[in-house]
Amino acid sequence: MSDKIPVGILGATGAVGQNYINLLENHPWFEVTYLAASPRSAGKAYKDVVESRWLLGANVPERVRDLVVEDANDPSKAVGRCRFVFSALELDSKDEIKALENAYASLGIPVVSNASAHRWTEDVPMLIPEINPDHLAVIDAQRKSHGWDRGFVAVKPNCSIQSYMIPVYALMKAGYEVKRMFVSTMQAVSGAGYPGVPSLDILDNVVPYIGGEEEKTEREPAKIFGKVVGGKIVNFDGLKVAAHCNRVPVINGHVACVSLEFGDKKPSLAEIERIWAEFRGLPQELNLPFAPDRPIIIRHEPNRPQPRRDRDEDKGMAVSVGRLRECPLFDVRFVGLSHNTVRGAAGGGILNAELLKAKGYIA
Amino acid sequence: MSDKIPVGILGATGAVGQNYINLLENHPWFEVTYLAASPRSAGKAYKDVVESRWLLGANVPERVRDLVVEDANDPSKAVGRCRFVFSALELDSKDEIKALENAYASLGIPVVSNASAHRWTEDVPMLIPEINPDHLAVIDAQRKSHGWDRGFVAVKPNCSIQSYMIPVYALMKAGYEVKRMFVSTMQAVSGAGYPGVPSLDILDNVVPYIGGEEEKTEREPAKIFGKVVGGKIVNFDGLKVAAHCNRVPVINGHVACVSLEFGDKKPSLAEIERIWAEFRGLPQELNLPFAPDRPIIIRHEPNRPQPRRDRDEDKGMAVSVGRLRECPLFDVRFVGLSHNTVRGAAGGGILNAELLKAKGYIA
Amino acid sequence: MSDKIPVGILGATGAVGQNYINLLENHPWFEVTYLAASPRSAGKAYKDVVESRWLLGANVPERVRDLVVEDANDPSKAVGRCRFVFSALELDSKDEIKALENAYASLGIPVVSNASAHRWTEDVPMLIPEINPDHLAVIDAQRKSHGWDRGFVAVKPNCSIQSYMIPVYALMKAGYEVKRMFVSTMQAVSGAGYPGVPSLDILDNVVPYIGGEEEKTEREPAKIFGKVVGGKIVNFDGLKVAAHCNRVPVINGHVACVSLEFGDKKPSLAEIERIWAEFRGLPQELNLPFAPDRPIIIRHEPNRPQPRRDRDEDKGMAVSVGRLRECPLFDVRFVGLSHNTVRGAAGGGILNAELLKAKGYIA
Amino acid sequence: MSDKIPVGILGATGAVGQNYINLLENHPWFEVTYLAASPRSAGKAYKDVVESRWLLGANVPERVRDLVVEDANDPSKAVGRCRFVFSALELDSKDEIKALENAYASLGIPVVSNASAHRWTEDVPMLIPEINPDHLAVIDAQRKSHGWDRGFVAVKPNCSIQSYMIPVYALMKAGYEVKRMFVSTMQAVSGAGYPGVPSLDILDNVVPYIGGEEEKTEREPAKIFGKVVGGKIVNFDGLKVAAHCNRVPVINGHVACVSLEFGDKKPSLAEIERIWAEFRGLPQELNLPFAPDRPIIIRHEPNRPQPRRDRDEDKGMAVSVGRLRECPLFDVRFVGLSHNTVRGAAGGGILNAELLKAKGYIA
Repeated sequence: MSDKIPVGILGATGAVGQNYINLLENHPWFEVTYLAASPRSAGKAYKDVVESRWLLGANVPERVRDLVVEDANDPSKAVGRCRFVFSALELDSKDEIKALENAYASLGIPVVSNASAHRWTEDVPMLIPEINPDHLAVIDAQRKSHGWDRGFVAVKPNCSIQSYMIPVYALMKAGYEVKRMFVSTMQAVSGAGYPGVPSLDILDNVVPYIGGEEEKTEREPAKIFGKVVGGKIVNFDGLKVAAHCNRVPVINGHVACVSLEFGDKKPSLAEIERIWAEFRGLPQELNLPFAPDRPIIIRHEPNRPQPRRDRDEDKGMAVSVGRLRECPLFDVRFVGLSHNTVRGAAGGGILNAELLKAKGYIA
Repeated sequence: MSDKIPVGILGATGAVGQNYINLLENHPWFEVTYLAASPRSAGKAYKDVVESRWLLGANVPERVRDLVVEDANDPSKAVGRCRFVFSALELDSKDEIKALENAYASLGIPVVSNASAHRWTEDVPMLIPEINPDHLAVIDAQRKSHGWDRGFVAVKPNCSIQSYMIPVYALMKAGYEVKRMFVSTMQAVSGAGYPGVPSLDILDNVVPYIGGEEEKTEREPAKIFGKVVGGKIVNFDGLKVAAHCNRVPVINGHVACVSLEFGDKKPSLAEIERIWAEFRGLPQELNLPFAPDRPIIIRHEPNRPQPRRDRDEDKGMAVSVGRLRECPLFDVRFVGLSHNTVRGAAGGGILNAELLKAKGYIA
Repeated sequence: MSDKIPVGILGATGAVGQNYINLLENHPWFEVTYLAASPRSAGKAYKDVVESRWLLGANVPERVRDLVVEDANDPSKAVGRCRFVFSALELDSKDEIKALENAYASLGIPVVSNASAHRWTEDVPMLIPEINPDHLAVIDAQRKSHGWDRGFVAVKPNCSIQSYMIPVYALMKAGYEVKRMFVSTMQAVSGAGYPGVPSLDILDNVVPYIGGEEEKTEREPAKIFGKVVGGKIVNFDGLKVAAHCNRVPVINGHVACVSLEFGDKKPSLAEIERIWAEFRGLPQELNLPFAPDRPIIIRHEPNRPQPRRDRDEDKGMAVSVGRLRECPLFDVRFVGLSHNTVRGAAGGGILNAELLKAKGYIA
Repeated sequence: MSDKIPVGILGATGAVGQNYINLLENHPWFEVTYLAASPRSAGKAYKDVVESRWLLGANVPERVRDLVVEDANDPSKAVGRCRFVFSALELDSKDEIKALENAYASLGIPVVSNASAHRWTEDVPMLIPEINPDHLAVIDAQRKSHGWDRGFVAVKPNCSIQSYMIPVYALMKAGYEVKRMFVSTMQAVSGAGYPGVPSLDILDNVVPYIGGEEEKTEREPAKIFGKVVGGKIVNFDGLKVAAHCNRVPVINGHVACVSLEFGDKKPSLAEIERIWAEFRGLPQELNLPFAPDRPIIIRHEPNRPQPRRDRDEDKGMAVSVGRLRECPLFDVRFVGLSHNTVRGAAGGGILNAELLKAKGYIA
């Protein structure tokens, strides 16, 4: 019998849920033992629910094909069958998701969530493990305030900001304050889930709008770069962001064009390259299974990174940057890219869980 | 017999040349009588050269199918067969193009050019007829300095800036100085001509780079907004631009995400809408055949303009704008779109020629 | 006031309904005066229902923007507001559609339908006006059997067979029996309506299956080529068809690869070309507004017809054929193409209505 | 030092050459030590030639980045630096390729070729290792007739027939003669190499023609199914084929719609499934490194196989089949799919080389 940690997936039949299942095949620490989704899928074998809309290669992984899907709305079903859950819940309202995630936590089941519902809950950490692993500290306060002993909720930020937040953080950590940031994204259709974007909307087309995406892009960095004070995260107000978010006919891989303005201390392009090349975070130090060797891969070709060529770098967990050059308005500009359903969604969630396990929050 | 003005097309077999032929079918003022291209096409019937790579619908237009293509390198061939030429020349160097365009002009044949070679020649106007028709004034100086009596060269700016320069100009004309502008473009593959972008580079992909495009985008507004002083165009140095230019899997239609910072006087969003809705330029006053009724079309849907839905507005000559909203870093932002091979290339060239005729420079 | 015939559209908000509205702008005989759709759209202005998912260019046509949508399930609403209806109904079952279309007919409102529900009703003609205009004769029997005086139902066949049925018919009419036909189609996503095919299913992909399409393809020719005997259509059993139907990442235009086996009398390739070039049907004789001048356009380029280049021929109503050559197994083979949402859907419906008007069934 | 067999690649910089390099990384038996291409690449480091047009993920493999490219037209350069070569030569004429491949063979260097030049040379085997490994027997005659002791030429057939030839062969081997076969293909753009298909020809489009492809499809099975008699391959004349070949906007993966007519003995659908499921060939028996475990993977979903979902099965070496059903004209029909640049090109070439090594022809 396996001594891996049994894990459940809430929202297992959707696009993000499928990605979790795909990426967790052969995970060295975690083993999928529990799948939950909407009531209409409950009671059916997983393969029977998803086979006709499986998105990730030819086959539903062998391990989970015959698992019976449970009703995600009933947390009690999960008790004793997994030691924590990944949440890819898609409910009608954020309040419902919050309540349901809390319900799992209250039953002693930690929730590592992709949903946006809890991102602005003060004592819920919004993690990018290379940036703010110290935010784990708020979990104790969270547990205490709810009276939970084992359960808790931790979330990850929006998918598209993964394409540039680590590079920006690396510069800030090296002492170069980034004060203002322009971002213009070109985002893959997989970010909208399945069925998601109709082909009639995107073939030979661009949609210069993604509902809620610009707001998330502009707000979330403040919490990600925040400081833990008294069991809560105090937002960082030193960085202003403006975002233009666009949908393009690409399957996977979000691209971001970024211009940065520094504070008084401005790095040279060479210095930025050096900082990015050398940057490593806690996941690299801890050698977490999903941590990319180099979180930031620098491209020197004039026309890179590109989604199809670069999204799979380090199994989709690395961020690729290129076209680093001076900006006529701000100080520097570059292009960032990450795999939105791996680093930006399920892979990022798994890295969060690995960090939580390494730090003793999941066991 | 027709009393239309006979016109020639240099580079008639390329993508831009084909667009000229397509758009000039049934033009009320101009009639294509002369086609010239590279020496290897010379002597052949036009249809025999282009039929296998005709880009614009099913058929090479009837009128030009049997015209024999001449060698564009020999301007003397054009004498007596057309009264002016559209230049879509693609030669190895800008110097060659300049020399050849000048050679046509020296033989009394005005050149209305899409090529970038002469854009920075001081006495050559770089026209957007809604913006700087007064730049025609430098043609007299140009003629004088070369000793030409009838010939001259006039050019148009780069295709992608057509998606936002008229809206920006409308605001400046209304008294709101635009000081800084961020632009991030998503440009169609037709902008690269034929064969142009290989499908293996762009299916399921984005290329975040177009050679020379960002430089043109950042420089050309200075001349477009310049003033004529002593027979030369003195550049405007009041607007700084930063551009990120990207290629996307779209056939026609360049999209631009734009953020603007004004000087001390800042318009409200409502004021901007009013200015754009009311804006008309000289082409509209003169009722030029290719002038769009409304140069700027405002979209209020949250997700517009989009290339496939909006590129053909007013036969591809209108600029569509949408998503006008405040910018957290600059003052306002919006999305602009224009048809790159119509307004941005051949259609823009035709509008230039119409203006030149209306003003007596072509007859 | 207009003396055009007022017409209604059932299912006006869907993809086919939108195409009807688009194509009927400026129709010389018909004028859209009545729009009906599902109950949830009823009572709203048409523009408010469709603006966010308008598929055909930038704007909902001016004429219908403010029409209030009625409930299509209530035929009584249509009485007095239109003289016939185009049906693009999408209900849960064919029986419901049959019943509803009959209900309109029973109220004296002829129904020209795109729905497949009534295709196999013996006294309902399944029309391709160039092929079987004589099938109109069953309408009298239909009216009689139902006790209707003015109303009736007429339908059109499946969209993809429009790409080759007229060419096949032309050969049969010329005396060359086609006994067996292989067809392999590549069909556009617009054939699936909106939202239709998810982009995650079709970008960088082909789906070798379209539900029900092969069955329709193999069965419908029997009725189309049938004879009217005693007020009913007796199917033609002389042609056997095998079809492979595929979905490809194309927006509009269905392509068919076709191999034909003749009976004893076999035409030469030159004879086939001659027959196709000369073919004209009743719509051409009657000079119906939507009738293409030449129903069959022959391409001689080696790589045509192609959807993007050829679909719009004669405003999308012509069938383009090419690559006519011998077949190593059967006798000849070719590639056919037609615009699936024009000739294959709304345009074909309009041509049916024009024929019905010309023949006095609609007035 | 490695004891792998050193191998060279002719045409190393093209699309097929890149695929060889990609697939041979970490090959257990072969090691790329020699790269040759056209004279204009000769003398340069491999990475400097291909980096800007590398097609396979982010990076040129480390092992070959710094190898200096040699002139493929000079076979003497290869002597002593590799023990055999993969040929992906692209020269102006087949005669040139034949002569050059022979020149390598004459110097004692076996040539395992993807080029079509030698496919119809009687003593050159055209191999699909699961089908005709006995054709290796002609190599002895080939060597003898040329007076070569070690060198020889072996080729593989056209890429797209890999999608159905193994399934057809499996049935024939089981005693069911296939007499007639209709094939209609939908082929990926990667089959045309790089730059290959212009994006303006294939976005929102299908090209119903691939030069030479139908002829190859119709002829090659005769040799593949031939018998070795007296040192030559005598073609099989029992199978007639008709092919319609089309290019679609898919990156990798050729799809074929196939209808089969058997001789007197006809298998049931269940029997066909059983035969396909059980089929194994010599590569499987020999456990060759690139041999797929199951050469034929049967899909039961109604809409499979699909390029994006199925092309990578068993590392791109398996053939996926689906939609097995009766054919109204012939006996049965199905959809086949294989990865055109792996099984259909470089992967197929590598499997050929593995077979040749296992049988002692390469050492």
